[in-house]
Amino acid sequence: MDKPLILITNDDGIHTEGILALQQAVQSLGETIVVAPEAEKSAVGHAITIADPIRIKEVEREGKFFGYAIGGTPADCVKLSVKVLLDRKPSLIVSGINLGSNLGTSVLYSGTVSAATEGVLLGIPSIAVSLDTFTDEEFSVASEIAHRFASLVLENGLPKGTALNINVPNVKKNEIKGVRLTQLGTSYYDETFDKREDPRGRIYYWMDGNLVGSEHSPDLDDIAVNENFVSVTPIHYKLTNHAYFETLSQWEPFKNGKA
Amino acid sequence: MDKPLILITNDDGIHTEGILALQQAVQSLGETIVVAPEAEKSAVGHAITIADPIRIKEVEREGKFFGYAIGGTPADCVKLSVKVLLDRKPSLIVSGINLGSNLGTSVLYSGTVSAATEGVLLGIPSIAVSLDTFTDEEFSVASEIAHRFASLVLENGLPKGTALNINVPNVKKNEIKGVRLTQLGTSYYDETFDKREDPRGRIYYWMDGNLVGSEHSPDLDDIAVNENFVSVTPIHYKLTNHAYFETLSQWEPFKNGKA
Repeated sequence: MDKPLILITNDDGIHTEGILALQQAVQSLGETIVVAPEAEKSAVGHAITIADPIRIKEVEREGKFFGYAIGGTPADCVKLSVKVLLDRKPSLIVSGINLGSNLGTSVLYSGTVSAATEGVLLGIPSIAVSLDTFTDEEFSVASEIAHRFASLVLENGLPKGTALNINVPNVKKNEIKGVRLTQLGTSYYDETFDKREDPRGRIYYWMDGNLVGSEHSPDLDDIAVNENFVSVTPIHYKLTNHAYFETLSQWEPFKNGKA
Repeated sequence: MDKPLILITNDDGIHTEGILALQQAVQSLGETIVVAPEAEKSAVGHAITIADPIRIKEVEREGKFFGYAIGGTPADCVKLSVKVLLDRKPSLIVSGINLGSNLGTSVLYSGTVSAATEGVLLGIPSIAVSLDTFTDEEFSVASEIAHRFASLVLENGLPKGTALNINVPNVKKNEIKGVRLTQLGTSYYDETFDKREDPRGRIYYWMDGNLVGSEHSPDLDDIAVNENFVSVTPIHYKLTNHAYFETLSQWEPFKNGKA
Protein backbone atom coordinates (compact mmCIF):
# COMPACT_ATOMS: atom_id res chain seq x y z
CA MET A 1 0.00 0.00 0.00
CA ASP A 2 1.20 3.51 -0.75
CA LYS A 3 2.33 5.59 2.15
CA PRO A 4 -0.16 8.38 2.92
CA LEU A 5 0.62 11.64 1.13
CA ILE A 6 0.92 14.60 3.52
CA LEU A 7 0.79 18.14 2.13
CA ILE A 8 2.62 20.72 4.23
CA THR A 9 1.99 24.43 3.88
CA ASN A 10 1.95 27.65 5.91
CA ASP A 11 1.49 31.41 5.62
CA ASP A 12 4.87 32.58 6.92
CA GLY A 13 6.57 31.39 3.74
CA ILE A 14 8.57 28.38 2.55
CA HIS A 15 11.91 29.68 3.84
CA THR A 16 10.91 29.80 7.53
CA GLU A 17 12.05 27.61 10.39
CA GLY A 18 8.48 26.71 11.29
CA ILE A 19 7.71 24.85 8.07
CA LEU A 20 11.03 23.01 8.17
CA ALA A 21 10.30 21.90 11.73
CA LEU A 22 6.83 20.76 10.63
CA GLN A 23 8.15 18.78 7.67
CA GLN A 24 10.69 17.05 9.90
CA ALA A 25 8.00 16.38 12.51
CA VAL A 26 5.64 14.49 10.20
CA GLN A 27 7.95 12.95 7.59
CA SER A 28 7.99 9.57 9.33
CA LEU A 29 4.21 9.31 8.94
CA GLY A 30 4.10 9.23 5.15
CA GLU A 31 5.33 10.81 1.94
CA THR A 32 5.55 14.56 2.52
CA ILE A 33 5.33 17.36 -0.02
CA VAL A 34 5.88 21.02 0.87
CA VAL A 35 3.96 23.68 -1.11
CA ALA A 36 4.03 27.09 0.53
CA PRO A 37 4.01 30.81 -0.27
CA GLU A 38 7.28 32.23 -1.58
CA ALA A 39 6.85 35.34 0.58
CA GLU A 40 5.21 35.89 3.95
CA LYS A 41 1.41 35.95 3.66
CA SER A 42 0.39 36.51 7.28
CA ALA A 43 -3.14 37.81 7.86
CA VAL A 44 -4.25 37.22 4.28
CA GLY A 45 -7.18 35.16 5.54
CA HIS A 46 -8.82 33.07 2.86
CA ALA A 47 -7.58 35.27 -0.01
CA ILE A 48 -7.06 33.62 -3.39
CA THR A 49 -5.28 35.00 -6.46
CA ILE A 50 -7.64 35.41 -9.39
CA ALA A 51 -6.52 38.74 -10.87
CA ASP A 52 -2.82 37.88 -11.22
CA PRO A 53 -0.72 35.06 -12.62
CA ILE A 54 0.65 32.49 -10.16
CA ARG A 55 4.21 31.19 -10.48
CA ILE A 56 5.78 28.03 -9.05
CA LYS A 57 9.46 27.67 -8.12
CA GLU A 58 11.37 24.67 -6.82
CA VAL A 59 13.13 25.38 -3.53
CA GLU A 60 16.16 23.67 -1.98
CA ARG A 61 16.91 23.68 1.73
CA GLU A 62 19.81 22.01 3.48
CA GLY A 63 21.27 21.11 0.09
CA LYS A 64 18.34 19.14 -1.28
CA PHE A 65 14.91 19.59 -2.85
CA PHE A 66 12.53 20.87 -0.16
CA GLY A 67 9.34 21.86 -1.95
CA TYR A 68 7.48 24.29 -4.20
CA ALA A 69 7.32 28.02 -3.55
CA ILE A 70 4.11 29.63 -4.83
CA GLY A 71 3.71 33.30 -5.73
CA GLY A 72 0.36 33.41 -3.97
CA THR A 73 -1.58 32.81 -0.79
CA PRO A 74 -1.92 29.74 1.46
CA ALA A 75 -5.33 28.92 -0.10
CA ASP A 76 -3.71 29.18 -3.56
CA CYS A 77 -1.02 26.71 -2.43
CA VAL A 78 -3.61 24.12 -1.42
CA LYS A 79 -5.71 24.54 -4.57
CA LEU A 80 -2.69 24.45 -6.88
CA SER A 81 -1.27 21.38 -5.11
CA VAL A 82 -4.46 19.40 -5.45
CA LYS A 83 -5.34 20.53 -8.98
CA VAL A 84 -1.90 20.77 -10.64
CA LEU A 85 1.13 19.62 -8.67
CA LEU A 86 0.14 16.34 -7.03
CA ASP A 87 -0.65 13.12 -8.84
CA ARG A 88 -2.81 11.81 -5.99
CA LYS A 89 -5.03 13.40 -3.36
CA PRO A 90 -3.28 14.05 -0.04
CA SER A 91 -4.51 12.05 2.96
CA LEU A 92 -3.73 14.97 5.24
CA ILE A 93 -2.83 18.68 5.11
CA VAL A 94 -0.79 20.22 7.92
CA SER A 95 -0.36 24.01 8.00
CA GLY A 96 2.29 25.73 10.13
CA ILE A 97 4.12 25.83 12.38
CA ASN A 98 2.97 29.44 12.50
CA LEU A 99 4.81 32.09 14.48
CA GLY A 100 2.06 33.69 16.53
CA SER A 101 -1.11 32.14 17.91
CA ASN A 102 -4.36 31.91 15.92
CA LEU A 103 -7.04 32.16 18.58
CA GLY A 104 -10.60 33.46 18.86
CA THR A 105 -11.66 35.93 16.18
CA SER A 106 -8.08 36.05 14.82
CA VAL A 107 -8.84 32.74 13.09
CA LEU A 108 -10.81 34.74 10.49
CA TYR A 109 -7.66 36.62 9.44
CA SER A 110 -5.29 33.70 9.58
CA GLY A 111 -3.62 32.40 6.44
CA THR A 112 -2.39 29.38 8.41
CA VAL A 113 -5.92 28.36 9.38
CA SER A 114 -7.34 29.23 5.94
CA ALA A 115 -4.98 26.71 4.34
CA ALA A 116 -6.56 24.06 6.57
CA THR A 117 -10.05 25.36 5.73
CA GLU A 118 -9.25 25.17 2.04
CA GLY A 119 -8.15 21.59 2.62
CA VAL A 120 -11.42 20.55 4.21
CA LEU A 121 -13.38 22.33 1.45
CA LEU A 122 -11.53 20.02 -0.95
CA GLY A 123 -12.43 17.03 1.20
CA ILE A 124 -9.00 16.53 2.81
CA PRO A 125 -8.58 16.20 6.61
CA SER A 126 -6.54 19.23 7.70
CA ILE A 127 -4.90 20.68 10.78
CA ALA A 128 -3.31 24.06 11.55
CA VAL A 129 -0.53 24.35 14.14
CA SER A 130 0.51 27.71 15.64
CA LEU A 131 3.05 28.63 18.30
CA ASP A 132 2.14 31.37 20.76
CA THR A 133 5.14 33.66 20.27
CA PHE A 134 6.83 35.93 17.77
CA THR A 135 10.27 35.72 19.39
CA ASP A 136 12.49 33.15 21.09
CA GLU A 137 10.51 30.43 19.41
CA GLU A 138 11.10 26.87 20.47
CA PHE A 139 9.53 24.45 17.99
CA SER A 140 10.18 21.15 19.77
CA VAL A 141 6.89 20.90 21.71
CA ALA A 142 4.84 22.11 18.72
CA SER A 143 6.65 19.58 16.53
CA GLU A 144 5.76 16.73 18.88
CA ILE A 145 2.14 17.88 18.99
CA ALA A 146 2.02 18.18 15.20
CA HIS A 147 3.36 14.64 14.85
CA ARG A 148 0.90 13.27 17.38
CA PHE A 149 -2.21 14.90 15.89
CA ALA A 150 -1.14 14.21 12.31
CA SER A 151 -0.89 10.56 13.30
CA LEU A 152 -4.28 10.63 15.06
CA VAL A 153 -5.99 12.26 12.08
CA LEU A 154 -4.45 9.78 9.63
CA GLU A 155 -5.78 7.00 11.85
CA ASN A 156 -9.22 8.39 12.79
CA GLY A 157 -10.04 10.91 10.08
CA LEU A 158 -12.07 14.05 10.76
CA PRO A 159 -15.75 14.73 10.05
CA LYS A 160 -16.50 16.27 6.65
CA GLY A 161 -15.90 20.01 6.67
CA THR A 162 -14.05 20.06 9.99
CA ALA A 163 -10.41 21.03 10.62
CA LEU A 164 -8.41 21.10 13.83
CA ASN A 165 -6.95 24.41 14.96
CA ILE A 166 -4.06 23.71 17.33
CA ASN A 167 -2.23 26.36 19.37
CA VAL A 168 0.85 25.57 21.43
CA PRO A 169 2.29 27.66 24.30
CA ASN A 170 5.92 28.65 23.76
CA VAL A 171 7.32 26.96 26.86
CA LYS A 172 9.55 24.00 27.60
CA LYS A 173 7.96 20.56 27.54
CA ASN A 174 7.99 20.13 31.32
CA GLU A 175 6.02 23.37 31.68
CA ILE A 176 3.17 22.19 29.40
CA LYS A 177 0.22 21.28 31.63
CA GLY A 178 -1.60 19.11 29.09
CA VAL A 179 -3.80 19.07 25.99
CA ARG A 180 -7.24 20.66 26.16
CA LEU A 181 -10.23 20.39 23.82
CA THR A 182 -11.45 23.98 23.47
CA GLN A 183 -13.90 26.24 21.71
CA LEU A 184 -12.90 29.49 20.01
CA GLY A 185 -12.90 32.28 22.58
CA THR A 186 -13.83 35.91 22.12
CA SER A 187 -10.27 37.22 22.08
CA TYR A 188 -9.58 39.87 19.45
CA TYR A 189 -7.06 42.52 18.50
CA ASP A 190 -8.14 46.01 19.37
CA GLU A 191 -6.43 47.75 16.46
CA THR A 192 -4.58 51.00 16.56
CA PHE A 193 -3.15 52.83 13.56
CA ASP A 194 0.21 54.50 13.89
CA LYS A 195 0.23 57.70 11.82
CA ARG A 196 3.65 58.34 10.23
CA GLU A 197 5.29 60.46 7.55
CA ASP A 198 7.38 58.93 4.78
CA PRO A 199 10.70 60.49 3.58
CA ARG A 200 8.76 62.44 0.94
CA GLY A 201 6.47 63.95 3.57
CA ARG A 202 3.44 61.82 2.75
CA ILE A 203 1.27 60.37 5.50
CA TYR A 204 0.83 56.65 5.96
CA TYR A 205 -0.64 54.40 8.63
CA TRP A 206 0.64 51.21 10.14
CA MET A 207 -1.78 48.77 11.74
CA ASP A 208 -0.97 47.54 15.23
CA GLY A 209 -3.16 46.17 17.96
CA ASN A 210 -3.52 45.02 21.53
CA LEU A 211 -4.85 41.57 22.18
CA VAL A 212 -7.99 41.58 24.33
CA GLY A 213 -8.48 38.15 25.89
CA SER A 214 -11.61 36.15 26.58
CA GLU A 215 -13.41 36.30 29.90
CA HIS A 216 -12.07 33.49 32.00
CA SER A 217 -13.47 30.10 31.07
CA PRO A 218 -11.06 27.18 30.90
CA ASP A 219 -12.61 25.69 27.76
CA LEU A 220 -11.80 28.77 25.62
CA ASP A 221 -8.77 28.56 23.36
CA ASP A 222 -6.83 31.63 24.53
CA ILE A 223 -7.40 30.85 28.21
CA ALA A 224 -6.09 27.31 27.70
CA VAL A 225 -2.91 28.58 26.01
CA ASN A 226 -2.38 31.21 28.72
CA GLU A 227 -2.59 28.41 31.29
CA ASN A 228 0.13 26.52 29.36
CA PHE A 229 -2.21 23.95 27.85
CA VAL A 230 -2.05 22.95 24.19
CA SER A 231 -5.41 24.09 22.75
CA VAL A 232 -7.20 21.96 20.11
CA THR A 233 -10.39 23.37 18.56
CA PRO A 234 -12.49 21.60 15.91
CA ILE A 235 -13.61 24.31 13.47
CA HIS A 236 -16.05 24.26 10.58
CA TYR A 237 -17.68 26.73 8.21
CA LYS A 238 -21.40 26.71 8.83
CA LEU A 239 -21.94 30.43 8.53
CA THR A 240 -25.74 30.56 8.26
CA ASN A 241 -27.33 31.92 11.45
CA HIS A 242 -30.33 29.60 11.66
CA ALA A 243 -31.30 30.88 15.11
CA TYR A 244 -32.25 34.21 13.55
CA PHE A 245 -34.56 32.85 10.83
CA GLU A 246 -37.74 33.12 12.85
CA THR A 247 -37.24 36.79 13.77
CA LEU A 248 -36.10 37.73 10.30
CA SER A 249 -39.02 35.96 8.65
CA GLN A 250 -41.27 38.56 10.32
CA TRP A 251 -39.64 41.38 8.33
CA GLU A 252 -41.99 42.77 5.73
CA PRO A 253 -40.07 41.70 2.58
CA PHE A 254 -40.24 38.05 3.72
CA LYS A 255 -43.85 38.24 4.80
CA ASN A 256 -45.09 39.48 1.46
CA GLY A 257 -42.17 37.99 -0.52
CA LYS A 258 -42.33 40.85 -3.02
CA ALA A 259 -39.18 42.45 -4.37
CA MET B 1 -31.02 64.02 16.65
CA ASP B 2 -28.10 63.30 14.35
CA LYS B 3 -28.85 61.47 11.15
CA PRO B 4 -27.52 57.89 11.25
CA LEU B 5 -24.01 57.55 9.83
CA ILE B 6 -23.79 54.95 7.05
CA LEU B 7 -20.37 53.64 5.99
CA ILE B 8 -20.20 52.41 2.41
CA THR B 9 -17.45 50.13 1.16
CA ASN B 10 -16.78 47.33 -1.34
CA ASP B 11 -14.03 45.12 -2.74
CA ASP B 12 -14.22 46.11 -6.42
CA GLY B 13 -12.69 49.51 -5.64
CA ILE B 14 -13.83 53.09 -5.07
CA HIS B 15 -13.94 53.97 -8.78
CA THR B 16 -16.58 51.40 -9.75
CA GLU B 17 -20.19 51.93 -10.79
CA GLY B 18 -21.44 49.57 -8.10
CA ILE B 19 -20.29 51.67 -5.15
CA LEU B 20 -21.62 54.86 -6.74
CA ALA B 21 -25.01 53.20 -7.24
CA LEU B 22 -24.95 52.03 -3.61
CA GLN B 23 -24.09 55.46 -2.26
CA GLN B 24 -26.92 57.00 -4.27
CA ALA B 25 -29.30 54.25 -3.13
CA VAL B 26 -28.83 54.84 0.61
CA GLN B 27 -27.94 58.53 0.84
CA SER B 28 -31.51 59.53 1.72
CA LEU B 29 -31.37 57.31 4.84
CA GLY B 30 -28.63 59.21 6.66
CA GLU B 31 -25.19 60.77 6.38
CA THR B 32 -23.09 58.59 4.08
CA ILE B 33 -19.33 58.20 3.97
CA VAL B 34 -17.52 56.12 1.34
CA VAL B 35 -14.27 54.38 2.32
CA ALA B 36 -13.18 51.75 -0.16
CA PRO B 37 -10.09 50.10 -1.66
CA GLU B 38 -8.18 52.19 -4.21
CA ALA B 39 -7.68 49.12 -6.40
CA GLU B 40 -9.80 46.02 -6.99
CA LYS B 41 -9.53 43.58 -4.09
CA SER B 42 -11.81 40.79 -5.22
CA ALA B 43 -11.35 37.40 -3.53
CA VAL B 44 -9.08 38.79 -0.82
CA GLY B 45 -11.39 37.29 1.83
CA HIS B 46 -10.81 38.66 5.29
CA ALA B 47 -7.22 39.74 4.58
CA ILE B 48 -5.82 42.69 6.53
CA THR B 49 -2.64 44.66 5.91
CA ILE B 50 -0.16 44.31 8.76
CA ALA B 51 3.17 44.00 6.93
CA ASP B 52 2.82 47.13 4.79
CA PRO B 53 1.94 50.78 5.27
CA ILE B 54 -1.61 51.87 4.44
CA ARG B 55 -2.28 55.14 2.61
CA ILE B 56 -5.46 57.19 2.38
CA LYS B 57 -6.43 59.40 -0.57
CA GLU B 58 -9.41 61.67 -1.07
CA VAL B 59 -11.39 60.82 -4.21
CA GLU B 60 -13.71 63.02 -6.30
CA ARG B 61 -16.45 61.66 -8.51
CA GLU B 62 -18.90 63.63 -10.63
CA GLY B 63 -16.99 66.79 -9.72
CA LYS B 64 -17.29 66.59 -5.95
CA PHE B 65 -15.80 64.82 -2.94
CA PHE B 66 -16.91 61.19 -3.02
CA GLY B 67 -14.90 59.41 -0.34
CA TYR B 68 -11.59 57.96 0.80
CA ALA B 69 -9.55 55.48 -1.22
CA ILE B 70 -7.52 53.09 0.91
CA GLY B 71 -4.39 51.28 -0.23
CA GLY B 72 -5.58 48.09 1.42
CA THR B 73 -8.32 45.51 1.71
CA PRO B 74 -12.06 45.82 2.48
CA ALA B 75 -11.44 44.75 6.11
CA ASP B 76 -8.70 47.43 6.34
CA CYS B 77 -11.22 50.02 5.09
CA VAL B 78 -13.70 49.18 7.84
CA LYS B 79 -11.07 49.12 10.61
CA LEU B 80 -9.45 52.36 9.45
CA SER B 81 -12.83 54.10 9.15
CA VAL B 82 -13.89 53.20 12.65
CA LYS B 83 -10.50 53.74 14.32
CA VAL B 84 -9.15 56.76 12.40
CA LEU B 85 -11.39 58.46 9.86
CA LEU B 86 -14.81 58.73 11.49
CA ASP B 87 -15.62 60.87 14.52
CA ARG B 88 -18.59 58.68 15.47
CA LYS B 89 -19.46 55.02 15.14
CA PRO B 90 -21.49 54.20 12.03
CA SER B 91 -25.04 52.95 12.59
CA LEU B 92 -24.76 50.75 9.52
CA ILE B 93 -22.19 49.41 7.06
CA VAL B 94 -23.24 48.53 3.52
CA SER B 95 -20.77 46.72 1.27
CA GLY B 96 -21.21 46.51 -2.51
CA ILE B 97 -22.80 46.56 -4.94
CA ASN B 98 -20.46 43.76 -5.96
CA LEU B 99 -20.15 42.56 -9.53
CA GLY B 100 -20.58 38.82 -9.21
CA SER B 101 -22.61 36.83 -6.72
CA ASN B 102 -21.28 35.77 -3.31
CA LEU B 103 -23.06 32.50 -2.64
CA GLY B 104 -22.37 29.26 -0.80
CA THR B 105 -18.72 28.53 -0.05
CA SER B 106 -17.65 31.55 -2.13
CA VAL B 107 -18.59 33.70 0.86
CA LEU B 108 -15.31 32.61 2.48
CA TYR B 109 -13.28 34.22 -0.31
CA SER B 110 -15.37 37.35 -0.66
CA GLY B 111 -13.94 40.73 0.18
CA THR B 112 -17.45 42.22 -0.11
CA VAL B 113 -18.82 39.92 2.57
CA SER B 114 -15.68 40.21 4.72
CA ALA B 115 -16.21 43.98 4.97
CA ALA B 116 -19.62 43.22 6.48
CA THR B 117 -18.11 40.59 8.76
CA GLU B 118 -15.51 43.09 9.93
CA GLY B 119 -18.35 45.48 10.65
CA VAL B 120 -20.22 43.05 12.88
CA LEU B 121 -16.96 42.14 14.66
CA LEU B 122 -16.75 45.84 15.53
CA GLY B 123 -20.36 45.81 16.73
CA ILE B 124 -21.90 47.56 13.73
CA PRO B 125 -24.93 46.13 11.86
CA SER B 126 -23.71 45.31 8.35
CA ILE B 127 -25.02 44.09 5.03
CA ALA B 128 -23.33 42.93 1.81
CA VAL B 129 -25.06 43.34 -1.56
CA SER B 130 -23.93 41.47 -4.68
CA LEU B 131 -25.30 41.34 -8.21
CA ASP B 132 -25.25 38.01 -10.02
CA THR B 133 -23.37 39.02 -13.17
CA PHE B 134 -20.00 40.19 -14.43
CA THR B 135 -21.36 41.79 -17.60
CA ASP B 136 -24.35 43.85 -18.71
CA GLU B 137 -24.95 44.84 -15.13
CA GLU B 138 -28.14 46.63 -14.26
CA PHE B 139 -27.91 48.14 -10.78
CA SER B 140 -31.46 49.49 -10.39
CA VAL B 141 -33.03 46.45 -8.70
CA ALA B 142 -30.01 45.89 -6.46
CA SER B 143 -30.09 49.59 -5.55
CA GLU B 144 -33.74 49.35 -4.51
CA ILE B 145 -33.03 46.23 -2.47
CA ALA B 146 -30.01 47.89 -0.82
CA HIS B 147 -32.15 50.89 0.13
CA ARG B 148 -34.93 48.72 1.50
CA PHE B 149 -32.72 46.49 3.64
CA ALA B 150 -30.53 49.37 4.81
CA SER B 151 -33.72 51.03 6.02
CA LEU B 152 -34.96 47.83 7.69
CA VAL B 153 -31.65 47.26 9.48
CA LEU B 154 -31.51 50.88 10.69
CA GLU B 155 -35.02 50.39 12.07
CA ASN B 156 -34.77 46.84 13.49
CA GLY B 157 -31.06 46.29 14.03
CA LEU B 158 -29.43 42.88 13.67
CA PRO B 159 -28.43 40.37 16.35
CA LYS B 160 -24.87 40.75 17.66
CA GLY B 161 -22.37 39.09 15.35
CA THR B 162 -24.82 38.66 12.46
CA ALA B 163 -24.63 40.26 9.00
CA LEU B 164 -26.98 39.96 6.03
CA ASN B 165 -25.60 38.57 2.78
CA ILE B 166 -27.83 39.72 -0.07
CA ASN B 167 -27.58 38.49 -3.66
CA VAL B 168 -29.65 39.97 -6.46
CA PRO B 169 -30.38 38.37 -9.86
CA ASN B 170 -29.33 40.56 -12.81
CA VAL B 171 -32.76 40.86 -14.39
CA LYS B 172 -35.32 43.59 -14.87
CA LYS B 173 -37.57 44.43 -11.96
CA ASN B 174 -40.65 42.81 -13.45
CA GLU B 175 -38.74 39.53 -13.79
CA ILE B 176 -37.82 39.38 -10.07
CA LYS B 177 -40.06 36.78 -8.44
CA GLY B 178 -39.64 38.00 -4.86
CA VAL B 179 -37.37 38.09 -1.82
CA ARG B 180 -36.40 34.81 -0.15
CA LEU B 181 -34.82 34.12 3.24
CA THR B 182 -32.14 31.53 2.51
CA GLN B 183 -29.29 29.53 3.97
CA LEU B 184 -25.87 29.29 2.36
CA GLY B 185 -25.88 26.49 -0.17
CA THR B 186 -23.10 24.13 -1.11
CA SER B 187 -22.21 25.82 -4.37
CA TYR B 188 -18.49 26.17 -5.03
CA TYR B 189 -16.02 26.89 -7.78
CA ASP B 190 -14.29 23.80 -9.13
CA GLU B 191 -11.00 25.48 -9.94
CA THR B 192 -8.89 24.90 -12.99
CA PHE B 193 -5.45 26.36 -13.61
CA ASP B 194 -4.58 27.55 -17.09
CA LYS B 195 -0.89 26.86 -17.77
CA ARG B 196 0.69 29.60 -19.90
CA GLU B 197 4.11 30.88 -20.98
CA ASP B 198 5.11 34.49 -20.54
CA PRO B 199 7.02 36.47 -23.25
CA ARG B 200 10.28 35.43 -21.59
CA GLY B 201 9.37 31.75 -21.82
CA ARG B 202 8.57 31.29 -18.16
CA ILE B 203 5.57 29.25 -17.05
CA TYR B 204 2.74 30.76 -15.05
CA TYR B 205 -0.74 29.66 -14.05
CA TRP B 206 -4.02 31.51 -14.07
CA MET B 207 -6.83 30.39 -11.79
CA ASP B 208 -10.24 29.87 -13.32
CA GLY B 209 -13.19 27.78 -12.25
CA ASN B 210 -16.59 26.38 -13.02
CA LEU B 211 -19.39 27.05 -10.60
CA VAL B 212 -20.96 23.87 -9.26
CA GLY B 213 -24.42 24.62 -7.89
CA SER B 214 -26.25 23.24 -4.86
CA GLU B 215 -28.59 20.28 -5.10
CA HIS B 216 -32.05 21.67 -5.62
CA SER B 217 -33.64 23.04 -2.48
CA PRO B 218 -35.51 26.34 -2.73
CA ASP B 219 -34.15 27.68 0.58
CA LEU B 220 -30.51 27.61 -0.61
CA ASP B 221 -28.99 30.89 -1.73
CA ASP B 222 -27.82 29.95 -5.21
CA ILE B 223 -31.05 28.15 -6.05
CA ALA B 224 -33.06 31.21 -5.02
CA VAL B 225 -30.98 33.50 -7.26
CA ASN B 226 -31.22 31.06 -10.18
CA GLU B 227 -35.00 31.17 -9.78
CA ASN B 228 -34.88 35.00 -9.99
CA PHE B 229 -35.46 35.57 -6.27
CA VAL B 230 -33.43 38.05 -4.25
CA SER B 231 -31.57 35.90 -1.69
CA VAL B 232 -31.05 37.17 1.88
CA THR B 233 -28.93 35.03 4.24
CA PRO B 234 -28.15 35.91 7.86
CA ILE B 235 -24.51 34.90 8.44
CA HIS B 236 -22.41 34.72 11.58
CA TYR B 237 -18.99 33.48 12.64
CA LYS B 238 -19.44 30.65 15.10
CA LEU B 239 -16.71 28.42 13.77
CA THR B 240 -16.40 25.93 16.63
CA ASN B 241 -17.83 22.53 15.67
CA HIS B 242 -19.52 21.65 18.97
CA ALA B 243 -21.22 18.58 17.49
CA TYR B 244 -17.81 16.93 17.23
CA PHE B 245 -16.70 17.46 20.85
CA GLU B 246 -17.99 14.16 22.15
CA THR B 247 -16.22 12.04 19.53
CA LEU B 248 -13.01 14.05 19.77
CA SER B 249 -12.97 13.86 23.56
CA GLN B 250 -12.43 10.10 23.18
CA TRP B 251 -9.08 10.66 21.45
CA GLU B 252 -6.19 9.63 23.65
CA PRO B 253 -4.61 13.09 24.20
CA PHE B 254 -7.90 14.37 25.65
CA LYS B 255 -8.54 11.30 27.71
CA ASN B 256 -5.23 11.43 29.52
CA GLY B 257 -4.81 15.21 29.03
CA LYS B 258 -1.03 14.83 28.81
CA ALA B 259 1.04 16.77 26.31
